[in-house]
Amino acid sequence: MQSNAEREPVSTKGEATRARIIQRALELAGQVGLESLSIGDLAQEMGLSKSGLFAHFRSKERLLLDVLEVAAEHFKARIFRPAVKRERGEARLVALFENWVKQIHSRELPGGGCVFMAGAFEWDDRQGPVRERVVGHFKELHQTLARAARISIDEKQFRADLDVDQFANELHAVLLKYHLEARLLRNRRALLYARRAFERLLRDARA
Amino acid sequence: MQSNAEREPVSTKGEATRARIIQRALELAGQVGLESLSIGDLAQEMGLSKSGLFAHFRSKERLLLDVLEVAAEHFKARIFRPAVKRERGEARLVALFENWVKQIHSRELPGGGCVFMAGAFEWDDRQGPVRERVVGHFKELHQTLARAARISIDEKQFRADLDVDQFANELHAVLLKYHLEARLLRNRRALLYARRAFERLLRDARA
Repeated sequence: MQSNAEREPVSTKGEATRARIIQRALELAGQVGLESLSIGDLAQEMGLSKSGLFAHFRSKERLLLDVLEVAAEHFKARIFRPAVKRERGEARLVALFENWVKQIHSRELPGGGCVFMAGAFEWDDRQGPVRERVVGHFKELHQTLARAARISIDEKQFRADLDVDQFANELHAVLLKYHLEARLLRNRRALLYARRAFERLLRDARA
Repeated sequence: MQSNAEREPVSTKGEATRARIIQRALELAGQVGLESLSIGDLAQEMGLSKSGLFAHFRSKERLLLDVLEVAAEHFKARIFRPAVKRERGEARLVALFENWVKQIHSRELPGGGCVFMAGAFEWDDRQGPVRERVVGHFKELHQTLARAARISIDEKQFRADLDVDQFANELHAVLLKYHLEARLLRNRRALLYARRAFERLLRDARA
Protein backbone atom coordinates (compact mmCIF):
# COMPACT_ATOMS: atom_id res chain seq x y z
CA MET A 1 0.00 0.00 0.00
CA GLN A 2 2.77 2.37 1.01
CA SER A 3 4.65 1.86 -2.23
CA ASN A 4 1.50 2.62 -4.21
CA ALA A 5 1.03 5.87 -2.34
CA GLU A 6 4.65 6.82 -2.96
CA ARG A 7 4.31 6.19 -6.65
CA GLU A 8 1.17 8.26 -6.93
CA PRO A 9 2.70 11.62 -7.90
CA VAL A 10 4.64 9.94 -10.72
CA SER A 11 1.51 8.17 -11.85
CA THR A 12 -0.44 11.45 -11.74
CA LYS A 13 2.18 13.20 -13.87
CA GLY A 14 2.08 10.26 -16.24
CA GLU A 15 -1.72 10.51 -16.40
CA ALA A 16 -1.50 14.23 -17.20
CA THR A 17 0.96 13.61 -20.04
CA ARG A 18 -1.22 10.78 -21.27
CA ALA A 19 -4.29 13.05 -21.26
CA ARG A 20 -2.38 15.76 -23.17
CA ILE A 21 -1.27 13.24 -25.79
CA ILE A 22 -4.84 11.95 -26.23
CA GLN A 23 -6.19 15.48 -26.55
CA ARG A 24 -3.65 16.42 -29.22
CA ALA A 25 -4.19 13.09 -31.00
CA LEU A 26 -7.92 13.78 -31.04
CA GLU A 27 -7.34 17.17 -32.66
CA LEU A 28 -5.01 15.68 -35.28
CA ALA A 29 -7.34 12.75 -35.96
CA GLY A 30 -10.15 15.24 -36.50
CA GLN A 31 -8.06 16.80 -39.25
CA VAL A 32 -6.53 13.78 -40.97
CA GLY A 33 -8.63 10.82 -39.80
CA LEU A 34 -7.69 7.98 -37.47
CA GLU A 35 -5.77 5.94 -39.99
CA SER A 36 -3.47 8.80 -41.02
CA LEU A 37 -2.66 9.82 -37.49
CA SER A 38 1.12 9.65 -37.39
CA ILE A 39 2.74 8.61 -34.12
CA GLY A 40 5.97 10.25 -35.30
CA ASP A 41 4.28 13.61 -35.94
CA LEU A 42 2.39 13.38 -32.68
CA ALA A 43 5.54 12.63 -30.65
CA GLN A 44 7.37 15.51 -32.31
CA GLU A 45 4.55 17.96 -31.53
CA MET A 46 4.54 16.85 -27.90
CA GLY A 47 8.33 17.14 -27.64
CA LEU A 48 8.60 13.40 -26.96
CA SER A 49 10.57 10.65 -28.62
CA LYS A 50 8.51 7.99 -30.37
CA SER A 51 9.47 5.49 -27.65
CA GLY A 52 8.62 8.10 -25.01
CA LEU A 53 5.16 8.36 -26.50
CA PHE A 54 4.83 4.57 -26.69
CA ALA A 55 5.65 4.38 -22.97
CA HIS A 56 2.16 5.86 -22.45
CA PHE A 57 0.39 3.61 -24.96
CA ARG A 58 1.37 0.09 -25.80
CA SER A 59 0.34 0.56 -29.43
CA LYS A 60 -1.22 2.92 -31.93
CA GLU A 61 -4.38 0.86 -31.53
CA ARG A 62 -4.44 1.57 -27.78
CA LEU A 63 -3.98 5.29 -28.49
CA LEU A 64 -6.80 5.29 -31.06
CA LEU A 65 -9.12 3.54 -28.59
CA ASP A 66 -8.37 6.16 -25.95
CA VAL A 67 -8.93 8.94 -28.48
CA LEU A 68 -12.33 7.46 -29.35
CA GLU A 69 -13.18 7.17 -25.66
CA VAL A 70 -12.47 10.86 -25.07
CA ALA A 71 -14.39 11.85 -28.21
CA ALA A 72 -17.39 9.76 -27.11
CA GLU A 73 -17.32 11.34 -23.66
CA HIS A 74 -17.22 14.81 -25.20
CA PHE A 75 -20.15 13.89 -27.43
CA LYS A 76 -22.25 12.68 -24.53
CA ALA A 77 -21.39 15.68 -22.34
CA ARG A 78 -22.38 18.19 -25.02
CA ILE A 79 -25.31 16.46 -26.68
CA PHE A 80 -26.94 13.78 -24.55
CA ARG A 81 -26.60 14.91 -20.95
CA PRO A 82 -28.01 18.45 -21.39
CA ALA A 83 -30.95 16.96 -23.32
CA VAL A 84 -31.82 14.46 -20.59
CA LYS A 85 -32.41 17.38 -18.22
CA ARG A 86 -35.24 18.59 -20.47
CA GLU A 87 -38.80 17.38 -20.00
CA ARG A 88 -39.64 13.90 -21.24
CA GLY A 89 -41.00 13.47 -24.75
CA GLU A 90 -40.74 15.55 -27.89
CA ALA A 91 -39.02 18.45 -26.08
CA ARG A 92 -36.15 16.13 -25.24
CA LEU A 93 -35.86 14.96 -28.86
CA VAL A 94 -35.82 18.57 -30.02
CA ALA A 95 -33.04 19.31 -27.48
CA LEU A 96 -31.04 16.32 -28.76
CA PHE A 97 -31.41 17.54 -32.32
CA GLU A 98 -30.51 21.15 -31.48
CA ASN A 99 -27.49 20.20 -29.34
CA TRP A 100 -26.29 17.87 -32.07
CA VAL A 101 -26.47 20.36 -34.95
CA LYS A 102 -24.91 23.05 -32.75
CA GLN A 103 -22.02 20.71 -31.96
CA ILE A 104 -21.49 19.79 -35.62
CA HIS A 105 -21.55 23.45 -36.55
CA SER A 106 -19.43 24.78 -33.71
CA ARG A 107 -16.06 23.19 -34.57
CA GLU A 108 -15.38 23.88 -30.90
CA LEU A 109 -13.24 20.78 -30.58
CA PRO A 110 -11.54 19.94 -33.87
CA GLY A 111 -12.38 16.35 -34.56
CA GLY A 112 -14.63 16.03 -31.55
CA GLY A 113 -17.54 14.97 -33.64
CA CYS A 114 -15.64 13.89 -36.72
CA VAL A 115 -13.37 11.08 -35.60
CA PHE A 116 -16.30 8.66 -35.54
CA MET A 117 -17.43 9.75 -38.99
CA ALA A 118 -13.92 9.54 -40.39
CA GLY A 119 -13.46 6.22 -38.58
CA ALA A 120 -16.74 4.90 -39.93
CA PHE A 121 -15.69 5.22 -43.54
CA GLU A 122 -12.03 4.33 -42.99
CA TRP A 123 -12.78 1.20 -40.98
CA ASP A 124 -15.82 -0.10 -42.78
CA ASP A 125 -13.99 -2.96 -44.46
CA ARG A 126 -11.72 -3.87 -41.55
CA GLN A 127 -11.93 -5.86 -38.34
CA GLY A 128 -10.57 -5.28 -34.86
CA PRO A 129 -11.09 -3.27 -31.67
CA VAL A 130 -11.01 0.18 -33.36
CA ARG A 131 -13.83 -0.77 -35.70
CA GLU A 132 -15.71 -2.35 -32.75
CA ARG A 133 -15.39 0.90 -30.78
CA VAL A 134 -16.68 2.98 -33.69
CA VAL A 135 -19.57 0.55 -34.17
CA GLY A 136 -20.31 0.67 -30.43
CA HIS A 137 -20.56 4.46 -30.55
CA PHE A 138 -23.12 4.38 -33.35
CA LYS A 139 -25.14 1.67 -31.59
CA GLU A 140 -25.23 3.81 -28.46
CA LEU A 141 -26.43 6.81 -30.47
CA HIS A 142 -29.16 4.66 -31.97
CA GLN A 143 -30.31 3.41 -28.58
CA THR A 144 -30.40 6.91 -27.12
CA LEU A 145 -32.53 8.22 -29.98
CA ALA A 146 -34.84 5.18 -29.92
CA ARG A 147 -35.28 5.52 -26.14
CA ALA A 148 -36.24 9.19 -26.51
CA ALA A 149 -38.82 8.24 -29.14
CA ARG A 150 -40.17 5.48 -26.87
CA ILE A 151 -40.64 8.03 -24.07
CA SER A 152 -42.57 10.26 -26.51
CA ILE A 153 -44.94 7.33 -27.11
CA ASP A 154 -45.29 6.78 -23.35
CA GLU A 155 -46.14 10.47 -23.02
CA LYS A 156 -48.86 10.02 -25.72
CA GLN A 157 -47.10 12.58 -27.95
CA PHE A 158 -46.16 9.98 -30.56
CA ARG A 159 -48.50 7.33 -31.95
CA ALA A 160 -48.39 3.96 -30.18
CA ASP A 161 -47.56 2.00 -33.34
CA LEU A 162 -44.46 4.07 -34.20
CA ASP A 163 -41.39 1.91 -34.92
CA VAL A 164 -38.86 3.64 -32.67
CA ASP A 165 -35.90 1.94 -34.37
CA GLN A 166 -37.06 3.23 -37.74
CA PHE A 167 -37.51 6.69 -36.19
CA ALA A 168 -34.01 6.63 -34.65
CA ASN A 169 -32.54 5.48 -37.97
CA GLU A 170 -34.18 8.31 -39.90
CA LEU A 171 -33.27 10.94 -37.32
CA HIS A 172 -29.63 9.90 -37.48
CA ALA A 173 -29.83 10.02 -41.30
CA VAL A 174 -30.86 13.69 -41.07
CA LEU A 175 -27.93 14.43 -38.73
CA LEU A 176 -25.40 12.57 -40.88
CA LYS A 177 -26.51 14.51 -43.92
CA TYR A 178 -26.37 17.77 -41.97
CA HIS A 179 -22.81 16.93 -40.95
CA LEU A 180 -21.83 16.38 -44.59
CA GLU A 181 -23.64 19.50 -45.87
CA ALA A 182 -22.51 21.86 -43.11
CA ARG A 183 -18.91 20.74 -42.69
CA LEU A 184 -17.83 19.56 -46.11
CA LEU A 185 -20.14 21.32 -48.54
CA ARG A 186 -20.48 24.43 -46.35
CA ASN A 187 -23.99 24.73 -47.68
CA ARG A 188 -25.78 27.72 -46.18
CA ARG A 189 -29.08 25.87 -46.53
CA ALA A 190 -27.79 22.84 -44.57
CA LEU A 191 -29.62 23.71 -41.37
CA LEU A 192 -32.82 24.65 -43.19
CA TYR A 193 -32.86 21.23 -44.90
CA ALA A 194 -32.12 19.44 -41.62
CA ARG A 195 -34.86 21.28 -39.70
CA ARG A 196 -37.46 20.59 -42.38
CA ALA A 197 -36.52 16.89 -42.51
CA PHE A 198 -36.72 16.69 -38.71
CA GLU A 199 -40.10 18.45 -38.76
CA ARG A 200 -41.45 15.98 -41.30
CA LEU A 201 -40.17 13.11 -39.18
CA LEU A 202 -41.87 14.51 -36.05
CA ARG A 203 -45.10 15.20 -37.97
CA ASP A 204 -45.32 11.60 -39.20
CA ALA A 205 -44.55 10.28 -35.67
CA ARG A 206 -47.11 12.32 -33.73
CA ALA A 207 -50.19 10.76 -32.22
CA MET B 1 3.02 15.14 -86.96
CA GLN B 2 5.29 12.24 -87.83
CA SER B 3 7.07 12.39 -84.47
CA ASN B 4 3.72 12.34 -82.65
CA ALA B 5 2.66 9.25 -84.56
CA GLU B 6 5.96 7.58 -83.76
CA ARG B 7 5.57 8.31 -80.09
CA GLU B 8 2.06 6.95 -79.96
CA PRO B 9 2.85 3.36 -78.87
CA VAL B 10 4.93 4.71 -75.98
CA SER B 11 2.17 7.08 -74.97
CA THR B 12 -0.36 4.24 -75.14
CA LYS B 13 1.80 2.04 -72.94
CA GLY B 14 2.20 4.99 -70.58
CA GLU B 15 -1.56 5.45 -70.54
CA ALA B 16 -2.08 1.78 -69.70
CA THR B 17 0.37 1.95 -66.80
CA ARG B 18 -1.26 5.15 -65.64
CA ALA B 19 -4.70 3.50 -65.71
CA ARG B 20 -3.39 0.50 -63.75
CA ILE B 21 -1.89 2.79 -61.11
CA ILE B 22 -5.15 4.72 -60.77
CA GLN B 23 -7.15 1.50 -60.47
CA ARG B 24 -4.90 0.13 -57.73
CA ALA B 25 -4.83 3.51 -55.98
CA LEU B 26 -8.64 3.53 -56.02
CA GLU B 27 -8.74 0.10 -54.37
CA LEU B 28 -6.23 1.15 -51.71
CA ALA B 29 -7.99 4.47 -51.09
CA GLY B 30 -11.21 2.55 -50.62
CA GLN B 31 -9.52 0.64 -47.82
CA VAL B 32 -7.49 3.34 -46.07
CA GLY B 33 -8.97 6.62 -47.28
CA LEU B 34 -7.46 9.22 -49.59
CA GLU B 35 -5.24 10.89 -47.03
CA SER B 36 -3.54 7.65 -45.95
CA LEU B 37 -2.85 6.47 -49.47
CA SER B 38 0.90 5.95 -49.46
CA ILE B 39 2.75 6.65 -52.71
CA GLY B 40 5.59 4.45 -51.46
CA ASP B 41 3.29 1.46 -50.83
CA LEU B 42 1.54 2.00 -54.14
CA ALA B 43 4.83 2.16 -56.09
CA GLN B 44 6.05 -1.01 -54.39
CA GLU B 45 2.85 -2.88 -55.22
CA MET B 46 3.11 -1.83 -58.86
CA GLY B 47 6.79 -2.81 -59.04
CA LEU B 48 7.77 0.79 -59.71
CA SER B 49 10.18 3.14 -58.01
CA LYS B 50 8.63 6.15 -56.33
CA SER B 51 10.09 8.42 -59.02
CA GLY B 52 8.84 5.97 -61.67
CA LEU B 53 5.35 6.38 -60.27
CA PHE B 54 5.72 10.16 -60.09
CA ALA B 55 6.66 10.16 -63.80
CA HIS B 56 2.98 9.35 -64.40
CA PHE B 57 1.58 11.91 -61.95
CA ARG B 58 3.17 15.22 -61.11
CA SER B 59 2.02 14.97 -57.48
CA LYS B 60 -0.01 12.94 -55.00
CA GLU B 61 -2.73 15.56 -55.47
CA ARG B 62 -2.86 14.85 -59.22
CA LEU B 63 -3.10 11.12 -58.50
CA LEU B 64 -5.94 11.65 -56.00
CA LEU B 65 -7.83 13.81 -58.51
CA ASP B 66 -7.51 11.08 -61.15
CA VAL B 67 -8.65 8.46 -58.60
CA LEU B 68 -11.73 10.56 -57.82
CA GLU B 69 -12.43 11.00 -61.54
CA VAL B 70 -12.41 7.23 -62.11
CA ALA B 71 -14.56 6.64 -59.00
CA ALA B 72 -17.09 9.26 -60.18
CA GLU B 73 -17.22 7.69 -63.63
CA HIS B 74 -17.83 4.26 -62.09
CA PHE B 75 -20.59 5.72 -59.92
CA LYS B 76 -22.36 7.30 -62.88
CA ALA B 77 -22.02 4.20 -65.05
CA ARG B 78 -23.54 1.91 -62.39
CA ILE B 79 -26.12 4.17 -60.78
CA PHE B 80 -27.17 7.11 -62.95
CA ARG B 81 -26.96 5.93 -66.53
CA PRO B 82 -29.02 2.72 -66.14
CA ALA B 83 -31.68 4.74 -64.27
CA VAL B 84 -32.01 7.35 -67.01
CA LYS B 85 -33.08 4.60 -69.41
CA ARG B 86 -36.14 3.92 -67.23
CA GLU B 87 -39.39 5.78 -67.76
CA ARG B 88 -39.59 9.38 -66.54
CA GLY B 89 -40.93 10.05 -63.04
CA GLU B 90 -41.12 7.96 -59.91
CA ALA B 91 -39.93 4.77 -61.69
CA ARG B 92 -36.66 6.53 -62.46
CA LEU B 93 -36.25 7.63 -58.84
CA VAL B 94 -36.89 4.07 -57.69
CA ALA B 95 -34.25 2.82 -60.17
CA LEU B 96 -31.76 5.39 -58.84
CA PHE B 97 -32.42 4.26 -55.28
CA GLU B 98 -32.19 0.54 -56.11
CA ASN B 99 -29.01 0.90 -58.19
CA TRP B 100 -27.45 2.97 -55.41
CA VAL B 101 -28.15 0.57 -52.54
CA LYS B 102 -27.08 -2.35 -54.73
CA GLN B 103 -23.79 -0.62 -55.45
CA ILE B 104 -23.17 0.19 -51.77
CA HIS B 105 -23.93 -3.39 -50.84
CA SER B 106 -22.03 -5.09 -53.65
CA ARG B 107 -18.47 -4.15 -52.71
CA GLU B 108 -17.85 -4.97 -56.36
CA LEU B 109 -15.14 -2.37 -56.63
CA PRO B 110 -13.40 -1.82 -53.30
CA GLY B 111 -13.53 1.86 -52.65
CA GLY B 112 -15.63 2.58 -55.71
CA GLY B 113 -18.32 4.18 -53.66
CA CYS B 114 -16.33 4.87 -50.53
CA VAL B 115 -13.56 7.23 -51.60
CA PHE B 116 -15.99 10.14 -51.73
CA MET B 117 -17.38 9.30 -48.29
CA ALA B 118 -13.91 8.87 -46.81
CA GLY B 119 -12.80 12.03 -48.61
CA ALA B 120 -15.80 13.95 -47.34
CA PHE B 121 -14.90 13.44 -43.70
CA GLU B 122 -11.13 13.65 -44.19
CA TRP B 123 -11.25 16.85 -46.21
CA ASP B 124 -14.03 18.70 -44.47
CA ASP B 125 -11.73 21.17 -42.75
CA ARG B 126 -9.27 21.62 -45.61
CA GLN B 127 -9.03 23.62 -48.82
CA GLY B 128 -7.74 22.77 -52.27
CA PRO B 129 -8.53 20.89 -55.46
CA VAL B 130 -9.16 17.49 -53.78
CA ARG B 131 -11.79 18.95 -51.50
CA GLU B 132 -13.27 20.84 -54.49
CA ARG B 133 -13.52 17.59 -56.46
CA VAL B 134 -15.26 15.79 -53.56
CA VAL B 135 -17.66 18.72 -53.15
CA GLY B 136 -18.31 18.74 -56.91
CA HIS B 137 -19.27 15.07 -56.79
CA PHE B 138 -21.85 15.63 -54.05
CA LYS B 139 -23.27 18.66 -55.85
CA GLU B 140 -23.70 16.59 -58.98
CA LEU B 141 -25.49 13.86 -57.00
CA HIS B 142 -27.80 16.49 -55.56
CA GLN B 143 -28.60 17.92 -58.97
CA THR B 144 -29.32 14.50 -60.45
CA LEU B 145 -31.73 13.62 -57.62
CA ALA B 146 -33.42 17.04 -57.72
CA ARG B 147 -33.83 16.78 -61.50
CA ALA B 148 -35.46 13.35 -61.18
CA ALA B 149 -37.88 14.78 -58.59
CA ARG B 150 -38.64 17.74 -60.89
CA ILE B 151 -39.52 15.32 -63.70
CA SER B 152 -41.89 13.50 -61.32
CA ILE B 153 -43.67 16.82 -60.75
CA ASP B 154 -43.87 17.42 -64.52
CA GLU B 155 -45.37 13.95 -64.87
CA LYS B 156 -48.01 14.90 -62.24
CA GLN B 157 -46.81 12.07 -59.97
CA PHE B 158 -45.45 14.47 -57.34
CA ARG B 159 -47.29 17.50 -56.00
CA ALA B 160 -46.50 20.78 -57.76
CA ASP B 161 -45.37 22.57 -54.59
CA LEU B 162 -42.75 19.95 -53.66
CA ASP B 163 -39.35 21.49 -52.86
CA VAL B 164 -37.14 19.31 -55.07
CA ASP B 165 -33.95 20.44 -53.31
CA GLN B 166 -35.42 19.39 -49.97
CA PHE B 167 -36.47 16.08 -51.52
CA ALA B 168 -32.97 15.46 -52.97
CA ASN B 169 -31.40 16.33 -49.62
CA GLU B 170 -33.58 13.86 -47.74
CA LEU B 171 -33.12 11.11 -50.31
CA HIS B 172 -29.36 11.45 -50.06
CA ALA B 173 -29.65 11.36 -46.26
CA VAL B 174 -31.33 7.96 -46.51
CA LEU B 175 -28.56 6.67 -48.78
CA LEU B 176 -25.76 8.04 -46.57
CA LYS B 177 -27.29 6.35 -43.57
CA TYR B 178 -27.72 3.12 -45.52
CA HIS B 179 -24.04 3.27 -46.47
CA LEU B 180 -23.06 3.62 -42.80
CA GLU B 181 -25.44 0.91 -41.58
CA ALA B 182 -24.72 -1.63 -44.30
CA ARG B 183 -20.96 -1.19 -44.65
CA LEU B 184 -19.76 -0.23 -41.21
CA LEU B 185 -22.40 -1.53 -38.83
CA ARG B 186 -23.28 -4.52 -41.03
CA ASN B 187 -26.81 -4.15 -39.78
CA ARG B 188 -29.10 -6.76 -41.33
CA ARG B 189 -32.00 -4.34 -41.05
CA ALA B 190 -30.13 -1.60 -42.97
CA LEU B 191 -32.00 -2.12 -46.21
CA LEU B 192 -35.37 -2.44 -44.47
CA TYR B 193 -34.81 0.93 -42.74
CA ALA B 194 -33.67 2.55 -46.00
CA ARG B 195 -36.66 1.25 -47.99
CA ARG B 196 -39.15 2.42 -45.37
CA ALA B 197 -37.54 5.86 -45.20
CA PHE B 198 -37.61 6.10 -49.02
CA GLU B 199 -41.26 5.00 -49.04
CA ARG B 200 -42.18 7.69 -46.51
CA LEU B 201 -40.33 10.27 -48.61
CA LEU B 202 -42.20 9.21 -51.77
CA ARG B 203 -45.54 9.14 -49.93
CA ASP B 204 -45.12 12.71 -48.71
CA ALA B 205 -44.03 13.85 -52.19
CA ARG B 206 -46.87 12.33 -54.18
CA ALA B 207 -49.60 14.45 -55.77
